[in-house]
Amino acid sequence: MTETKQAFQDYYPDEYAHCYGCGRLNESGMQIKSYWDGDETVCSVDPKPYYTGGRKDILYGGLIASLLDCHGAGTAAAAKARELNIKLETGKLPRFVTASLKVDYVAPTPVGKQVDIRAKIKSIEGRKVTVELTLSVENILCAKGEGLFIQLKE
Amino acid sequence: MTETKQAFQDYYPDEYAHCYGCGRLNESGMQIKSYWDGDETVCSVDPKPYYTGGRKDILYGGLIASLLDCHGAGTAAAAKARELNIKLETGKLPRFVTASLKVDYVAPTPVGKQVDIRAKIKSIEGRKVTVELTLSVENILCAKGEGLFIQLKE
Repeated sequence: MTETKQAFQDYYPDEYAHCYGCGRLNESGMQIKSYWDGDETVCSVDPKPYYTGGRKDILYGGLIASLLDCHGAGTAAAAKARELNIKLETGKLPRFVTASLKVDYVAPTPVGKQVDIRAKIKSIEGRKVTVELTLSVENILCAKGEGLFIQLKE
Repeated sequence: MTETKQAFQDYYPDEYAHCYGCGRLNESGMQIKSYWDGDETVCSVDPKPYYTGGRKDILYGGLIASLLDCHGAGTAAAAKARELNIKLETGKLPRFVTASLKVDYVAPTPVGKQVDIRAKIKSIEGRKVTVELTLSVENILCAKGEGLFIQLKE
């Protein structure tokens, strides 16, 4: 499989599409988009210039956590949908919430560059999906993380 | 000791005051303020209404991680300063970066309410400060976390 053109977030049910990070209906938000790339998922973001950390030349750590969280939740939903053979375009993507998120800041992340977030599915156990995450700039690893996401009951 | 009126972030050196979460010089940012309250630290925030999670009535998880990160880093700096007997008003607060952050989302956090973040120092080992964090709304625990913060070398 290669990267698809279907962003997971474009298929979230409307009532769950208000996330500041990834909701397509949040006009003030970042509206990030996540895609399959084989068995991994990818998301690229050009952060707004005001998302600086303490120093003007370093990306805000809270934004990094936010991007890992949103891409991780989207990946969990897409992975569970794939397991259940639910196609994105049905709009019936299972919905996940974050139970826990761990972020390790490996290196300062520069501002003014595209950041690339990638995820791998570590495990799917019923309603629990664990996702491994990385954030890189120009192929240099800047942060890595792991998220546990829980599928909401219908 | 009781809560002081001196916000840690007001005493960060100018070149480190650009954080989107807590930098007093970031005009687009949240400019959160953290204070001592005895041996703990406190920070209260009224999030902007667009910081919603997937649903319109739930606070954005990425914002929660961001607030814990910023308040944790400020707490680490203030605690190290207190250990070194450096007073905030000297403006010589040691500067910390986040090495890792873990967040457990305990309960959905409502929007439209003040969120209260509290921190306790778990350990100070040289340049490493570990901080335990909670985020509550109306005294109901919504998230907890732990951060490891590293003091920058001068």
